Amino acid sequence: MYLKGKKIALVIDKNFEDSEAVYPYFRLIEEGAEVIIAGPLKATIINGKWGYPLKSDIAIEELKATDFDGVIVPGGYAPDLLRRYPHLLNFVHEIFNQGKLVASICHGPWVLISAKILSGKRVTCVPAIKDDVINAGASYFDEEVVVDGNLVTSRNPFDLPAFMKAIITFLGKK
Amino acid sequence: MYLKGKKIALVIDKNFEDSEAVYPYFRLIEEGAEVIIAGPLKATIINGKWGYPLKSDIAIEELKATDFDGVIVPGGYAPDLLRRYPHLLNFVHEIFNQGKLVASICHGPWVLISAKILSGKRVTCVPAIKDDVINAGASYFDEEVVVDGNLVTSRNPFDLPAFMKAIITFLGKK
Repeated sequence: MYLKGKKIALVIDKNFEDSEAVYPYFRLIEEGAEVIIAGPLKATIINGKWGYPLKSDIAIEELKATDFDGVIVPGGYAPDLLRRYPHLLNFVHEIFNQGKLVASICHGPWVLISAKILSGKRVTCVPAIKDDVINAGASYFDEEVVVDGNLVTSRNPFDLPAFMKAIITFLGKK
Repeated sequence: MYLKGKKIALVIDKNFEDSEAVYPYFRLIEEGAEVIIAGPLKATIINGKWGYPLKSDIAIEELKATDFDGVIVPGGYAPDLLRRYPHLLNFVHEIFNQGKLVASICHGPWVLISAKILSGKRVTCVPAIKDDVINAGASYFDEEVVVDGNLVTSRNPFDLPAFMKAIITFLGKK
């Protein structure tokens, strides 16, 4: 139970990439962390891009940075919806400024762009949004996982093992 | 890389429970193991119960017990199809007799029943197939994971963290 006492927000909306939410969810629980799924509405089933159903624990509007040790934003097309929530962008910005974990994979960094935390940072993402990330002031690297301080990013589902290893290592040191 | 050098077969057919294949797949890779997905045909996309696509590496007919350190049979309705392959049942039987890992979750133990390895064993499974497991001569326990020698079983996706912890512990000791 390496991460006992840690509380992580996993933020999803419809069309999240199923594996990028399911794998982090169970993986952090396996390490003893508490994982809170946040979605547009609380206690609501949200289906992934391939159909997998996850139930939200709380609404995005309920997210408070002081309640959490980090946030994970999976990919798929959910991030295109999620970046429209000013409350979520403030939450991510605060978590980041508090030196806590901000982790994202695939199209997830769209949310980090809109949370205005990428300028001067080293990141990776799915190639499709590489230009968006660079235009936000980040340096892009084609690597399975890029760790820059409290920012952890990966490219796609095949990077999930490296992504979670980096996340667990970071959270274990805090 | 706790499981470097270990080679595990993950056996699926259509309508596998997505999380019960996706989580073990990435989890074992995270520990450095090699995971070979076996399905009815090799190099073919197989969709889970919720739609998640996994690509088979090899055909079930190619499975050889001497090539592997263990086998995992996820749940969903795939096991109802998988238990019709005599080659798979022989494979599971041999893996079991060689003292290697046989792990299954949810409806997966249907395959273990037909592989004739459950008599006198302690197991768990989804409640729906509890009677089938008992009629096969096993003792049923309503626990998140039951380990009886080289046999590891769990009930449902929420048990995945405990299931994988037991599997990794077993494989690490061999």
